[in-house]
Amino acid sequence: MRFTSERRLDDGVDEREFTLGEIPGILWTPGSATAPTPLILLGHPGGLNAMYPRLLARARQSVAEGFAAATIELPGSGDRPRDAAAEEARADLRRAIGAGGPVDDDIVARLVLPLVERAVPEWRAVLDALLALPGIDGPVGFAGGIISVGIRLAVVEPRIAAAVLFAGSYVPRALFDDARRVTVPLQVLLQWDDEGNDRQAALDLFDALGSTEKTLHANMGGHTGVPRFAGEEADRFLARHLR
Amino acid sequence: MRFTSERRLDDGVDEREFTLGEIPGILWTPGSATAPTPLILLGHPGGLNAMYPRLLARARQSVAEGFAAATIELPGSGDRPRDAAAEEARADLRRAIGAGGPVDDDIVARLVLPLVERAVPEWRAVLDALLALPGIDGPVGFAGGIISVGIRLAVVEPRIAAAVLFAGSYVPRALFDDARRVTVPLQVLLQWDDEGNDRQAALDLFDALGSTEKTLHANMGGHTGVPRFAGEEADRFLARHLR
Repeated sequence: MRFTSERRLDDGVDEREFTLGEIPGILWTPGSATAPTPLILLGHPGGLNAMYPRLLARARQSVAEGFAAATIELPGSGDRPRDAAAEEARADLRRAIGAGGPVDDDIVARLVLPLVERAVPEWRAVLDALLALPGIDGPVGFAGGIISVGIRLAVVEPRIAAAVLFAGSYVPRALFDDARRVTVPLQVLLQWDDEGNDRQAALDLFDALGSTEKTLHANMGGHTGVPRFAGEEADRFLARHLR
Repeated sequence: MRFTSERRLDDGVDEREFTLGEIPGILWTPGSATAPTPLILLGHPGGLNAMYPRLLARARQSVAEGFAAATIELPGSGDRPRDAAAEEARADLRRAIGAGGPVDDDIVARLVLPLVERAVPEWRAVLDALLALPGIDGPVGFAGGIISVGIRLAVVEPRIAAAVLFAGSYVPRALFDDARRVTVPLQVLLQWDDEGNDRQAALDLFDALGSTEKTLHANMGGHTGVPRFAGEEADRFLARHLR
Protein backbone atom coordinates (compact mmCIF):
# COMPACT_ATOMS: atom_id res chain seq x y z
CA MET A 1 0.00 0.00 0.00
CA ARG A 2 1.47 3.29 -1.14
CA PHE A 3 0.25 6.64 0.19
CA THR A 4 0.11 9.27 -2.56
CA SER A 5 -1.18 12.26 -0.59
CA GLU A 6 -1.81 13.24 3.00
CA ARG A 7 -3.62 16.20 4.52
CA ARG A 8 -5.28 17.17 7.79
CA LEU A 9 -8.86 18.45 7.40
CA ASP A 10 -10.06 21.39 9.46
CA ASP A 11 -11.90 19.15 11.92
CA GLY A 12 -8.72 17.20 12.72
CA VAL A 13 -9.44 14.24 10.42
CA ASP A 14 -6.38 12.88 8.61
CA GLU A 15 -7.13 12.04 4.97
CA ARG A 16 -4.66 9.91 2.99
CA GLU A 17 -5.03 8.79 -0.60
CA PHE A 18 -3.42 5.47 -1.41
CA THR A 19 -2.97 2.88 -4.11
CA LEU A 20 -2.69 -0.86 -3.64
CA GLY A 21 -1.52 -2.23 -6.97
CA GLU A 22 -3.96 -0.69 -9.43
CA ILE A 23 -6.63 0.03 -6.78
CA PRO A 24 -6.94 3.68 -5.66
CA GLY A 25 -8.49 4.48 -2.32
CA ILE A 26 -8.80 6.93 0.56
CA LEU A 27 -8.23 6.40 4.28
CA TRP A 28 -9.62 8.70 6.97
CA THR A 29 -8.38 8.45 10.55
CA PRO A 30 -8.81 10.50 13.72
CA GLY A 31 -5.88 12.89 13.85
CA SER A 32 -5.58 12.48 17.59
CA ALA A 33 -6.19 8.74 17.96
CA THR A 34 -4.14 7.02 20.62
CA ALA A 35 -5.85 3.65 20.96
CA PRO A 36 -6.32 1.30 17.95
CA THR A 37 -9.59 2.12 16.21
CA PRO A 38 -12.16 -0.16 14.56
CA LEU A 39 -12.44 0.29 10.80
CA ILE A 40 -15.48 1.01 8.61
CA LEU A 41 -15.21 0.11 4.91
CA LEU A 42 -17.30 2.63 2.97
CA GLY A 43 -18.86 0.96 -0.05
CA HIS A 44 -20.26 2.96 -2.99
CA PRO A 45 -21.50 2.34 -6.54
CA GLY A 46 -18.26 3.41 -8.25
CA GLY A 47 -16.90 6.78 -9.37
CA LEU A 48 -14.78 7.92 -6.44
CA ASN A 49 -14.44 11.55 -7.58
CA ALA A 50 -18.16 12.06 -8.08
CA MET A 51 -18.97 10.23 -4.83
CA TYR A 52 -16.24 12.05 -2.84
CA PRO A 53 -18.42 14.70 -1.12
CA ARG A 54 -20.90 12.11 0.15
CA LEU A 55 -18.14 9.67 1.14
CA LEU A 56 -16.28 12.41 2.99
CA ALA A 57 -19.44 13.32 4.93
CA ARG A 58 -19.90 9.67 5.91
CA ALA A 59 -16.20 9.35 6.80
CA ARG A 60 -16.34 12.45 9.02
CA GLN A 61 -19.31 10.98 10.89
CA SER A 62 -17.47 7.66 11.32
CA VAL A 63 -14.28 9.34 12.53
CA ALA A 64 -16.31 11.47 14.94
CA GLU A 65 -17.62 8.18 16.37
CA GLY A 66 -14.02 7.05 16.93
CA PHE A 67 -13.60 4.84 13.86
CA ALA A 68 -11.20 4.85 10.94
CA ALA A 69 -12.93 4.80 7.52
CA ALA A 70 -11.67 3.74 4.12
CA THR A 71 -12.99 3.44 0.59
CA ILE A 72 -11.65 2.21 -2.75
CA GLU A 73 -12.61 2.66 -6.39
CA LEU A 74 -14.61 -0.20 -7.91
CA PRO A 75 -13.06 -2.07 -10.86
CA GLY A 76 -14.07 -0.43 -14.15
CA SER A 77 -15.18 2.85 -12.51
CA GLY A 78 -13.65 6.31 -12.13
CA ASP A 79 -10.09 6.44 -13.51
CA ARG A 80 -9.76 2.63 -13.63
CA PRO A 81 -9.73 0.82 -17.00
CA ARG A 82 -13.16 0.09 -18.42
CA ASP A 83 -14.28 -3.50 -18.97
CA ALA A 84 -15.97 -3.92 -22.37
CA ALA A 85 -18.39 -6.65 -21.25
CA ALA A 86 -19.39 -4.67 -18.17
CA GLU A 87 -19.98 -1.52 -20.23
CA GLU A 88 -22.18 -3.49 -22.63
CA ALA A 89 -24.18 -4.98 -19.73
CA ARG A 90 -24.52 -1.51 -18.16
CA ALA A 91 -25.90 -0.12 -21.43
CA ASP A 92 -28.32 -3.06 -21.70
CA LEU A 93 -29.49 -2.44 -18.12
CA ARG A 94 -30.06 1.27 -18.84
CA ARG A 95 -32.08 0.35 -21.93
CA ALA A 96 -34.15 -2.18 -19.98
CA ILE A 97 -34.85 0.33 -17.19
CA GLY A 98 -35.68 2.99 -19.80
CA ALA A 99 -38.14 0.64 -21.49
CA GLY A 100 -40.02 0.54 -18.18
CA GLY A 101 -40.71 -3.19 -18.16
CA PRO A 102 -39.33 -5.75 -15.71
CA VAL A 103 -35.53 -6.00 -15.93
CA ASP A 104 -34.25 -9.40 -17.02
CA ASP A 105 -32.11 -11.13 -14.40
CA ASP A 106 -29.56 -12.13 -17.07
CA ILE A 107 -28.72 -8.49 -17.74
CA VAL A 108 -28.30 -7.73 -14.03
CA ALA A 109 -26.19 -10.86 -13.57
CA ARG A 110 -23.91 -9.96 -16.54
CA LEU A 111 -23.22 -6.57 -14.94
CA VAL A 112 -23.09 -7.39 -11.23
CA LEU A 113 -21.63 -10.90 -10.88
CA PRO A 114 -18.27 -10.15 -12.58
CA LEU A 115 -18.07 -6.94 -10.56
CA VAL A 116 -18.62 -8.87 -7.31
CA GLU A 117 -16.02 -11.46 -8.38
CA ARG A 118 -13.41 -8.72 -8.91
CA ALA A 119 -14.35 -6.22 -6.20
CA VAL A 120 -14.59 -8.56 -3.20
CA PRO A 121 -10.96 -9.87 -3.44
CA GLU A 122 -9.83 -6.27 -3.88
CA TRP A 123 -11.63 -5.17 -0.72
CA ARG A 124 -10.03 -8.12 1.13
CA ALA A 125 -6.53 -7.23 -0.10
CA VAL A 126 -7.05 -3.61 0.94
CA LEU A 127 -8.35 -4.81 4.32
CA ASP A 128 -5.14 -6.85 4.82
CA ALA A 129 -3.06 -3.74 4.09
CA LEU A 130 -5.17 -1.41 6.27
CA LEU A 131 -5.11 -3.71 9.28
CA ALA A 132 -1.31 -3.88 8.99
CA LEU A 133 -1.10 -0.11 9.58
CA PRO A 134 -0.37 1.13 13.10
CA GLY A 135 -3.43 2.45 14.92
CA ILE A 136 -6.03 0.52 12.92
CA ASP A 137 -7.46 -2.61 14.41
CA GLY A 138 -10.43 -4.91 14.06
CA PRO A 139 -13.31 -5.41 14.28
CA VAL A 140 -14.35 -4.24 10.84
CA GLY A 141 -17.69 -2.98 9.54
CA PHE A 142 -18.91 -2.49 5.98
CA ALA A 143 -21.27 0.37 5.19
CA GLY A 144 -22.73 1.25 1.82
CA GLY A 145 -23.16 -0.36 -1.57
CA ILE A 146 -23.29 -1.86 -3.93
CA ILE A 147 -25.35 -4.26 -1.84
CA SER A 148 -24.23 -7.31 -3.86
CA VAL A 149 -20.59 -6.58 -2.98
CA GLY A 150 -21.51 -5.99 0.67
CA ILE A 151 -23.38 -9.29 0.86
CA ARG A 152 -20.60 -11.36 -0.74
CA LEU A 153 -18.00 -9.64 1.44
CA ALA A 154 -20.05 -10.38 4.57
CA VAL A 155 -20.22 -14.06 3.55
CA VAL A 156 -16.56 -14.68 2.68
CA GLU A 157 -14.66 -12.26 4.94
CA PRO A 158 -14.72 -13.33 8.59
CA ARG A 159 -13.25 -10.02 9.77
CA ILE A 160 -16.52 -8.24 8.82
CA ALA A 161 -18.43 -8.11 12.13
CA ALA A 162 -21.47 -6.06 11.06
CA ALA A 163 -22.72 -4.36 7.91
CA VAL A 164 -24.95 -1.47 6.88
CA LEU A 165 -26.19 -2.24 3.37
CA PHE A 166 -27.71 0.36 1.03
CA ALA A 167 -30.55 -1.24 -0.96
CA GLY A 168 -29.94 0.99 -3.95
CA SER A 169 -29.10 -1.24 -6.89
CA TYR A 170 -30.28 -4.24 -8.86
CA VAL A 171 -29.28 -7.60 -7.38
CA PRO A 172 -29.00 -10.76 -9.50
CA ARG A 173 -30.94 -13.80 -8.28
CA ALA A 174 -27.63 -15.65 -7.81
CA LEU A 175 -26.76 -13.29 -4.96
CA PHE A 176 -29.86 -14.41 -3.04
CA ASP A 177 -27.97 -17.64 -2.27
CA ASP A 178 -25.20 -15.53 -0.75
CA ALA A 179 -27.81 -13.49 1.13
CA ARG A 180 -29.11 -16.61 2.87
CA ARG A 181 -25.57 -17.36 4.10
CA VAL A 182 -24.99 -13.99 5.78
CA THR A 183 -24.91 -14.30 9.57
CA VAL A 184 -23.50 -10.98 10.84
CA PRO A 185 -25.83 -8.30 12.24
CA LEU A 186 -27.23 -6.15 9.45
CA GLN A 187 -28.94 -2.83 9.01
CA VAL A 188 -30.42 -2.41 5.52
CA LEU A 189 -31.24 1.12 4.34
CA LEU A 190 -33.98 1.40 1.73
CA GLN A 191 -35.08 4.66 0.13
CA TRP A 192 -38.79 3.85 -0.13
CA ASP A 193 -39.50 5.95 -3.22
CA ASP A 194 -36.14 5.42 -4.94
CA GLU A 195 -36.93 5.94 -8.61
CA GLY A 196 -33.87 3.91 -9.70
CA ASN A 197 -34.58 0.90 -7.53
CA ASP A 198 -37.05 -1.99 -7.46
CA ARG A 199 -38.69 -1.76 -4.04
CA GLN A 200 -40.22 -5.23 -4.07
CA ALA A 201 -36.88 -6.79 -5.07
CA ALA A 202 -35.21 -4.95 -2.19
CA LEU A 203 -37.84 -6.26 0.26
CA ASP A 204 -37.40 -9.80 -1.12
CA LEU A 205 -33.65 -9.51 -0.63
CA PHE A 206 -34.09 -8.28 2.95
CA ASP A 207 -36.35 -11.26 3.57
CA ALA A 208 -33.71 -13.65 2.21
CA LEU A 209 -30.84 -12.40 4.37
CA GLY A 210 -29.86 -15.12 6.84
CA SER A 211 -28.83 -12.97 9.82
CA THR A 212 -30.88 -13.37 12.99
CA GLU A 213 -30.29 -9.68 13.74
CA LYS A 214 -31.35 -7.76 10.67
CA THR A 215 -33.18 -4.45 10.58
CA LEU A 216 -34.72 -2.66 7.61
CA HIS A 217 -34.78 1.15 7.79
CA ALA A 218 -36.95 2.54 5.00
CA ASN A 219 -37.05 6.31 4.52
CA MET A 220 -38.46 8.92 2.19
CA GLY A 221 -36.37 11.30 0.12
CA GLY A 222 -35.49 9.58 -3.15
CA HIS A 223 -32.31 7.77 -4.19
CA THR A 224 -29.77 10.20 -2.74
CA GLY A 225 -31.97 11.64 0.02
CA VAL A 226 -30.99 9.36 2.92
CA PRO A 227 -31.98 11.49 5.94
CA ARG A 228 -29.25 12.58 8.32
CA PHE A 229 -30.91 10.71 11.21
CA ALA A 230 -30.67 7.46 9.19
CA GLY A 231 -26.91 7.95 8.90
CA GLU A 232 -26.71 8.54 12.64
CA GLU A 233 -28.69 5.36 13.31
CA ALA A 234 -26.28 3.46 11.04
CA ASP A 235 -23.33 4.80 13.03
CA ARG A 236 -24.98 3.79 16.31
CA PHE A 237 -25.62 0.31 14.89
CA LEU A 238 -21.95 -0.04 13.92
CA ALA A 239 -20.78 1.36 17.26
CA ARG A 240 -22.98 -1.18 19.07
CA HIS A 241 -21.38 -4.08 17.20
CA LEU A 242 -17.78 -2.94 16.71
CA ARG A 243 -16.98 -1.74 20.24
CA MET B 1 -59.73 12.85 36.38
CA ARG B 2 -59.59 10.99 39.68
CA PHE B 3 -56.37 9.42 40.97
CA THR B 4 -57.03 6.06 42.61
CA SER B 5 -53.50 5.10 43.64
CA GLU B 6 -50.04 6.62 43.77
CA ARG B 7 -46.62 5.09 44.37
CA ARG B 8 -42.99 5.91 43.74
CA LEU B 9 -41.07 3.16 41.93
CA ASP B 10 -37.53 2.30 42.97
CA ASP B 11 -36.03 4.27 40.07
CA GLY B 12 -37.80 7.47 41.15
CA VAL B 13 -40.68 7.20 38.67
CA ASP B 14 -44.05 8.28 40.07
CA GLU B 15 -46.86 5.95 38.99
CA ARG B 16 -50.48 7.04 39.43
CA GLU B 17 -53.56 5.06 38.45
CA PHE B 18 -56.55 7.16 37.47
CA THR B 19 -60.06 7.01 36.12
CA LEU B 20 -61.72 9.51 33.84
CA GLY B 21 -65.39 8.65 33.82
CA GLU B 22 -65.39 4.95 33.06
CA ILE B 23 -61.88 4.98 31.53
CA PRO B 24 -59.08 3.56 33.69
CA GLY B 25 -55.49 4.56 33.03
CA ILE B 26 -51.99 4.99 34.38
CA LEU B 27 -49.73 8.04 34.43
CA TRP B 28 -45.96 7.87 34.89
CA THR B 29 -43.97 11.02 35.61
CA PRO B 30 -40.39 11.78 36.61
CA GLY B 31 -40.36 12.02 40.41
CA SER B 32 -37.90 14.88 40.32
CA ALA B 33 -39.23 16.90 37.35
CA THR B 34 -38.99 20.65 37.74
CA ALA B 35 -39.73 21.88 34.22
CA PRO B 36 -42.95 20.95 32.34
CA THR B 37 -42.39 17.69 30.46
CA PRO B 38 -43.66 16.57 27.05
CA LEU B 39 -46.11 13.66 27.16
CA ILE B 40 -46.06 10.28 25.40
CA LEU B 41 -49.38 8.46 25.05
CA LEU B 42 -48.63 4.72 25.17
CA GLY B 43 -51.05 2.84 22.93
CA HIS B 44 -51.62 -0.91 23.24
CA PRO B 45 -54.03 -3.56 21.94
CA GLY B 46 -56.17 -3.67 25.09
CA GLY B 47 -55.91 -5.58 28.36
CA LEU B 48 -54.07 -3.21 30.68
CA ASN B 49 -53.27 -5.80 33.35
CA ALA B 50 -51.75 -8.27 30.92
CA MET B 51 -49.89 -5.49 29.06
CA TYR B 52 -48.69 -3.81 32.28
CA PRO B 53 -45.12 -5.22 32.42
CA ARG B 54 -44.39 -4.18 28.82
CA LEU B 55 -46.10 -0.79 29.23
CA LEU B 56 -44.14 -0.15 32.44
CA ALA B 57 -40.87 -0.93 30.65
CA ARG B 58 -41.76 1.50 27.86
CA ALA B 59 -42.88 4.12 30.40
CA ARG B 60 -39.61 3.81 32.34
CA GLN B 61 -37.66 4.40 29.12
CA SER B 62 -39.82 7.43 28.28
CA VAL B 63 -39.46 8.90 31.76
CA ALA B 64 -35.70 8.31 31.65
CA GLU B 65 -35.72 10.44 28.47
CA GLY B 66 -37.46 13.23 30.39
CA PHE B 67 -41.04 12.61 29.26
CA ALA B 68 -44.25 11.86 31.09
CA ALA B 69 -46.08 8.75 29.83
CA ALA B 70 -49.70 7.68 30.09
CA THR B 71 -51.90 4.84 28.96
CA ILE B 72 -55.59 3.96 29.17
CA GLU B 73 -57.66 0.81 28.80
CA LEU B 74 -59.36 0.37 25.41
CA PRO B 75 -63.17 0.20 25.36
CA GLY B 76 -64.34 -3.40 25.73
CA SER B 77 -60.99 -4.66 27.07
CA GLY B 78 -59.64 -5.54 30.50
CA ASP B 79 -62.15 -4.78 33.26
CA ARG B 80 -64.31 -2.59 31.00
CA PRO B 81 -67.76 -3.83 29.85
CA ARG B 82 -67.66 -6.09 26.81
CA ASP B 83 -69.41 -5.04 23.59
CA ALA B 84 -71.39 -7.92 22.09
CA ALA B 85 -70.88 -6.87 18.46
CA ALA B 86 -67.13 -6.41 19.00
CA GLU B 87 -66.83 -9.82 20.67
CA GLU B 88 -68.64 -11.43 17.73
CA ALA B 89 -66.36 -9.67 15.24
CA ARG B 90 -63.29 -10.70 17.26
CA ALA B 91 -64.43 -14.33 17.19
CA ASP B 92 -65.05 -14.10 13.43
CA LEU B 93 -61.56 -12.65 12.93
CA ARG B 94 -59.97 -15.46 14.98
CA ARG B 95 -61.85 -18.03 12.90
CA ALA B 96 -60.77 -16.37 9.64
CA ILE B 97 -57.12 -16.24 10.74
CA GLY B 98 -57.34 -19.84 11.94
CA ALA B 99 -58.73 -20.92 8.57
CA GLY B 100 -55.50 -19.61 7.03
CA GLY B 101 -57.06 -17.88 4.05
CA PRO B 102 -57.14 -14.13 3.35
CA VAL B 103 -59.08 -12.24 6.01
CA ASP B 104 -62.17 -10.46 4.73
CA ASP B 105 -62.03 -6.67 5.14
CA ASP B 106 -65.64 -6.65 6.41
CA ILE B 107 -64.67 -8.68 9.47
CA VAL B 108 -61.71 -6.40 10.23
CA ALA B 109 -63.87 -3.31 9.74
CA ARG B 110 -66.61 -4.65 12.05
CA LEU B 111 -64.04 -5.12 14.81
CA VAL B 112 -61.74 -2.12 14.33
CA LEU B 113 -63.89 0.79 13.09
CA PRO B 114 -66.24 0.91 16.11
CA LEU B 115 -63.21 0.59 18.37
CA VAL B 116 -61.53 3.55 16.65
CA GLU B 117 -64.76 5.58 16.88
CA ARG B 118 -64.92 5.00 20.65
CA ALA B 119 -61.23 4.97 21.58
CA VAL B 120 -60.07 8.15 19.83
CA PRO B 121 -62.47 10.53 21.65
CA GLU B 122 -61.50 8.80 24.92
CA TRP B 123 -57.80 9.41 24.24
CA ARG B 124 -58.60 13.06 23.48
CA ALA B 125 -60.60 13.50 26.69
CA VAL B 126 -57.76 11.94 28.69
CA LEU B 127 -55.31 14.21 26.90
CA ASP B 128 -57.34 17.26 27.93
CA ALA B 129 -57.23 16.11 31.54
CA LEU B 130 -53.52 15.21 31.51
CA LEU B 131 -52.46 18.53 29.99
CA ALA B 132 -54.42 20.33 32.72
CA LEU B 133 -52.19 18.73 35.38
CA PRO B 134 -49.25 20.76 36.73
CA GLY B 135 -45.88 19.72 35.28
CA ILE B 136 -47.22 18.15 32.08
CA ASP B 137 -47.05 20.18 28.92
CA GLY B 138 -47.18 19.73 25.17
CA PRO B 139 -46.01 18.70 22.68
CA VAL B 140 -47.52 15.24 22.72
CA GLY B 141 -46.40 12.02 21.07
CA PHE B 142 -48.28 8.76 20.53
CA ALA B 143 -46.39 5.46 20.67
CA GLY B 144 -47.83 2.00 20.20
CA GLY B 145 -50.97 0.41 18.85
CA ILE B 146 -53.42 -0.42 17.77
CA ILE B 147 -52.17 1.29 14.63
CA SER B 148 -55.71 2.20 13.46
CA VAL B 149 -56.28 4.19 16.65
CA GLY B 150 -52.86 5.85 16.31
CA ILE B 151 -53.56 6.86 12.72
CA ARG B 152 -57.02 8.33 13.43
CA LEU B 153 -55.66 10.12 16.51
CA ALA B 154 -52.80 11.61 14.44
CA VAL B 155 -55.34 12.87 11.89
CA VAL B 156 -57.90 14.46 14.22
CA GLU B 157 -55.83 15.57 17.23
CA PRO B 158 -53.62 18.59 16.43
CA ARG B 159 -51.70 18.28 19.71
CA ILE B 160 -50.09 15.01 18.47
CA ALA B 161 -46.73 16.20 17.08
CA ALA B 162 -45.16 12.83 16.19
CA ALA B 163 -46.10 9.16 16.41
CA VAL B 164 -44.44 5.78 16.67
CA LEU B 165 -46.90 3.24 15.29
CA PHE B 166 -46.68 -0.52 15.90
CA ALA B 167 -47.72 -2.38 12.74
CA GLY B 168 -49.09 -5.29 14.71
CA SER B 169 -52.78 -5.61 13.89
CA TYR B 170 -55.23 -5.85 11.03
CA VAL B 171 -56.27 -2.54 9.51
CA PRO B 172 -59.56 -2.06 7.65
CA ARG B 173 -59.34 -0.53 4.17
CA ALA B 174 -61.37 2.47 5.40
CA LEU B 175 -58.43 3.50 7.60
CA PHE B 176 -56.21 3.86 4.51
CA ASP B 177 -58.09 7.10 3.77
CA ASP B 178 -57.09 8.33 7.22
CA ALA B 179 -53.52 7.15 6.61
CA ARG B 180 -53.22 9.39 3.55
CA ARG B 181 -54.23 12.39 5.67
CA VAL B 182 -51.54 11.92 8.35
CA THR B 183 -48.90 14.66 8.15
CA VAL B 184 -46.91 14.39 11.40
CA PRO B 185 -43.49 12.68 11.43
CA LEU B 186 -43.88 8.93 11.83
CA GLN B 187 -41.78 5.96 12.78
CA VAL B 188 -43.52 2.65 11.98
CA LEU B 189 -42.28 -0.49 13.74
CA LEU B 190 -42.88 -3.75 11.91
CA GLN B 191 -41.96 -7.17 13.29
CA TRP B 192 -40.95 -8.77 9.97
CA ASP B 193 -41.89 -12.35 10.87
CA ASP B 194 -44.89 -11.52 13.06
CA GLU B 195 -47.04 -14.64 12.86
CA GLY B 196 -50.20 -12.72 13.81
CA ASN B 197 -49.77 -9.96 11.24
CA ASP B 198 -50.10 -9.56 7.47
CA ARG B 199 -46.70 -8.22 6.34
CA GLN B 200 -47.82 -7.09 2.90
CA ALA B 201 -50.80 -5.23 4.37
CA ALA B 202 -48.45 -3.49 6.81
CA LEU B 203 -46.15 -2.44 3.93
CA ASP B 204 -49.15 -1.19 1.92
CA LEU B 205 -50.28 0.85 4.92
CA PHE B 206 -46.80 2.34 5.38
CA ASP B 207 -46.84 3.27 1.69
CA ALA B 208 -50.22 4.99 2.09
CA LEU B 209 -49.23 7.18 5.05
CA GLY B 210 -49.18 10.82 3.94
CA SER B 211 -46.33 12.13 6.10
CA THR B 212 -43.27 13.44 4.28
CA GLU B 213 -41.11 12.21 7.16
CA LYS B 214 -41.97 8.56 7.67
CA THR B 215 -39.58 5.77 8.52
CA LEU B 216 -40.21 2.02 8.60
CA HIS B 217 -38.14 0.02 11.08
CA ALA B 218 -38.57 -3.70 10.42
CA ASN B 219 -37.00 -6.16 12.85
CA MET B 220 -36.82 -9.85 13.56
CA GLY B 221 -38.08 -11.49 16.74
CA GLY B 222 -41.76 -12.29 16.28
CA HIS B 223 -44.83 -10.39 17.47
CA THR B 224 -43.64 -9.49 20.97
CA GLY B 225 -39.90 -9.55 20.24
CA VAL B 226 -39.31 -5.86 19.43
CA PRO B 227 -35.55 -5.52 20.07
CA ARG B 228 -34.41 -3.18 22.82
CA PHE B 229 -32.50 -1.06 20.30
CA ALA B 230 -35.73 -0.48 18.33
CA GLY B 231 -37.34 0.93 21.47
CA GLU B 232 -34.35 3.20 21.96
CA GLU B 233 -34.58 4.40 18.34
CA ALA B 234 -38.28 5.16 18.92
CA ASP B 235 -37.40 7.22 21.99
CA ARG B 236 -34.74 9.13 20.04
CA PHE B 237 -37.28 9.80 17.27
CA LEU B 238 -39.78 11.18 19.80
CA ALA B 239 -37.11 13.21 21.57
CA ARG B 240 -36.07 14.72 18.21
CA HIS B 241 -39.62 15.89 17.51
CA LEU B 242 -40.99 16.72 20.96
CA ARG B 243 -38.12 18.80 22.36
